Amino acid sequence: MENWKSFLEASQESFLADLIDFLRIPSISTQPEYQAEVKRAAEWLATRMESAGLEHVEVLATDGHPIVYGEWLHAENAPTLLLYGHYDVQPVDPLELWTTPPFAPDLREGRLFARGASDMKGNVLVMIHALEAHLRTAGSLPINLRVVIEGEEEIGSRSLPKWLAENRDKIACDIAASADSAQLALQIPTLIVGAKGMCGLQMDVKTAETDLHSGLAGGVVHNALHVASQIVASMHDEFHRVTVAGFYDDVSLPTPDERAMCARMPLREDDFRKSIGVNELISEPGFTPMESTWFRPTLEVNGMWGGFQGEGTKTIIPCVAHVKITCRLVANQQPAKIIELLKAHLARVTPSGVEVHVTPLFDMADPYLLPEDHPATKAADAALQDVMGGHPMHMRMGATVPILGMLKELLGVEVLSLGFSGIRDGMHAPNESLDLSFYRLGAHVYARLFETLATLRGGLHSSV
Amino acid sequence: MENWKSFLEASQESFLADLIDFLRIPSISTQPEYQAEVKRAAEWLATRMESAGLEHVEVLATDGHPIVYGEWLHAENAPTLLLYGHYDVQPVDPLELWTTPPFAPDLREGRLFARGASDMKGNVLVMIHALEAHLRTAGSLPINLRVVIEGEEEIGSRSLPKWLAENRDKIACDIAASADSAQLALQIPTLIVGAKGMCGLQMDVKTAETDLHSGLAGGVVHNALHVASQIVASMHDEFHRVTVAGFYDDVSLPTPDERAMCARMPLREDDFRKSIGVNELISEPGFTPMESTWFRPTLEVNGMWGGFQGEGTKTIIPCVAHVKITCRLVANQQPAKIIELLKAHLARVTPSGVEVHVTPLFDMADPYLLPEDHPATKAADAALQDVMGGHPMHMRMGATVPILGMLKELLGVEVLSLGFSGIRDGMHAPNESLDLSFYRLGAHVYARLFETLATLRGGLHSSV
Repeated sequence: MENWKSFLEASQESFLADLIDFLRIPSISTQPEYQAEVKRAAEWLATRMESAGLEHVEVLATDGHPIVYGEWLHAENAPTLLLYGHYDVQPVDPLELWTTPPFAPDLREGRLFARGASDMKGNVLVMIHALEAHLRTAGSLPINLRVVIEGEEEIGSRSLPKWLAENRDKIACDIAASADSAQLALQIPTLIVGAKGMCGLQMDVKTAETDLHSGLAGGVVHNALHVASQIVASMHDEFHRVTVAGFYDDVSLPTPDERAMCARMPLREDDFRKSIGVNELISEPGFTPMESTWFRPTLEVNGMWGGFQGEGTKTIIPCVAHVKITCRLVANQQPAKIIELLKAHLARVTPSGVEVHVTPLFDMADPYLLPEDHPATKAADAALQDVMGGHPMHMRMGATVPILGMLKELLGVEVLSLGFSGIRDGMHAPNESLDLSFYRLGAHVYARLFETLATLRGGLHSSV
Repeated sequence: MENWKSFLEASQESFLADLIDFLRIPSISTQPEYQAEVKRAAEWLATRMESAGLEHVEVLATDGHPIVYGEWLHAENAPTLLLYGHYDVQPVDPLELWTTPPFAPDLREGRLFARGASDMKGNVLVMIHALEAHLRTAGSLPINLRVVIEGEEEIGSRSLPKWLAENRDKIACDIAASADSAQLALQIPTLIVGAKGMCGLQMDVKTAETDLHSGLAGGVVHNALHVASQIVASMHDEFHRVTVAGFYDDVSLPTPDERAMCARMPLREDDFRKSIGVNELISEPGFTPMESTWFRPTLEVNGMWGGFQGEGTKTIIPCVAHVKITCRLVANQQPAKIIELLKAHLARVTPSGVEVHVTPLFDMADPYLLPEDHPATKAADAALQDVMGGHPMHMRMGATVPILGMLKELLGVEVLSLGFSGIRDGMHAPNESLDLSFYRLGAHVYARLFETLATLRGGLHSSV
């Protein structure tokens, strides 16, 4: 008798055709001229979700691009899993660097090249194929499912928080999984357990009403760029530690097991250094550069400017200087609290007579860390191990995945970050591609995850 | 019998007509579309110098705007004085802030309003009127004169150094005087004895080949803006002293007499503070703000930029940062030496793995300080005192007057900086004006200066 495994294997050809169809739609959310194509992608996806056996499939309007929703809720006494993904893609510039056109999917050496292949139309279909395999063979799923696929991830999921807040009935669940994630390698099954949060601000330093002539007032007035530089310099010590008082207060230190996990990363420090084009890596005492990326919060100036920037010279004392700063945060730091600490630091180091105006960035994101001992973590490990073999890597990222903290905050559930792109598949870059081996394995892992999660029933909720 | 004094008094009306004629010519050297007008001003001036009685008057071509030359060399055994000025003017923007058109001189409350009134067509004519008064009454001058009036002062006297070097016969002299200078007030005869020198550089910091994603490399690579800020912050201590090793080595400390002279400045610290629009003045320990301006060299960042400067945020680690720095120098600092000290400082504070590229500014200027005990200083004092009364102020400036150091360097003579604009006559600003009382007095002081210098004969040369 046919089971989900054999169904998945037998459907490889049609699943590839699905992906090619989906990738042909240029659903670029950032460019208004593609609005109709974004909608077309939503409708294509809704049709495909319906044909897979999901119920109450809808294309739901938002203030921006629509959200595609579907559900299957007939697994009595089983937990409910919310599956998250997005069907929008990044722009294609610079177009001239693409070997083949970005929306004409091209198969070369086992990889499908197209914009959106790895980020994340392939991963959306991986989840759909997994549930379809159960429904077509067993006629049912071992778990209840809600599927939410948005169209605005590449523009900051603008409409999602409001939609989630207004549709609590459609998102009630015990656990969530985001397929907007990646694998380290075929031999290294990967569950992303941590991503950094973010907060930031713009600091505007004002020292006088106008720029002043350095011959008239040189040495006797504050120079906005001197003050801004002193403030920026005051934010790190010589050991690359952030000196903002209280900055590390809520940071949980890694356990020996977590350090051991980090040490398993298949990336030599020197290879990493070369890949990013720097002469030297730096890091805080007591942490390797990889550990810094995993476990330590950062504060970086992203932009800074003031005074004369043209050719030659203009002997002014600039009266204003601007600094943009963002922090990447780790569990259990809170973005709003960090902003307050930064403000207090600025108040402390600003010289008298100088005004510093602070504008927090609109976008903040909570850090996210999946608890190691959560039953869903073990269920995901089991699914990965059963399909891919080996000991799953629990990876943390220096990057920010706002959806993880957002789902945790709004749904009160933990979020498995489980996707099947390769970690270097050129997301956002020209010649984005997807390894079809991952595309195949992904559906198997998700199909198995529905089973491993189903056995848990109670105990999936976090205390929030 | 008529003497130079009565001639000057009797000629007030025609001298005012001279100035109005001269100011009607828009000799803006910075804007190529005014090139013909600049030439017309040179020709008008040459005609006026000839009518005043100067000999061998010529409009001499340079690579840029012409130089007007004239001489009177019949005072046997008397010293030779070189008179310096410029006939070009600043642009007029913003035009809408002018009460009357900038090239339609307007007389209001004893002041003539026009672009170039105080900087420095009035002062050029002051010198011409002074020599004319002697020649028309005595038929001779008590001193030999060479007059060099250039047309490129507002564009950095580009052609002058080459012209001076190539025309040593036309500039041979015992002493020089520049009328590109000002008076503090009618009651405070002013000789400017010191102006600061200048040097500067652009520093380009490079930390990586490209901007890096702060989620990928945050905290583990140098950030060009952090490094640039640390370097800028390293250049001053908390007491506003420059920390570049050796920076103050050649600085001569003020004598008690010089400090007493500074304390005579008729500008209350708080009025100065308000006039420049700052909340607080700062200065090095041991120096008042005014003393800092007179006696202390400065280092100011004039511009600094790197990374993202647009709306919102971009979470990059900038790989390049740029800093423009200029120093104002005092006697006996040497611009080229200071550049070397700055380079050594940068080499010392730049972290390993980071590249800092230094480009010195093309324009450097020597500081200038007229020796207090030089006979010409006493001759200038005597002329000021005889005409204006009171005890002349020997003022120093925080600004740079490259011509002073240039004449000293190329001619080997000291330079009297003696001009009759008011210190706040709106040079370079809209509604520039000249107090006609100064216009009148200036001619008397120069006419008397020819006499007080004439008595000196020998002993005017500096040892160079």
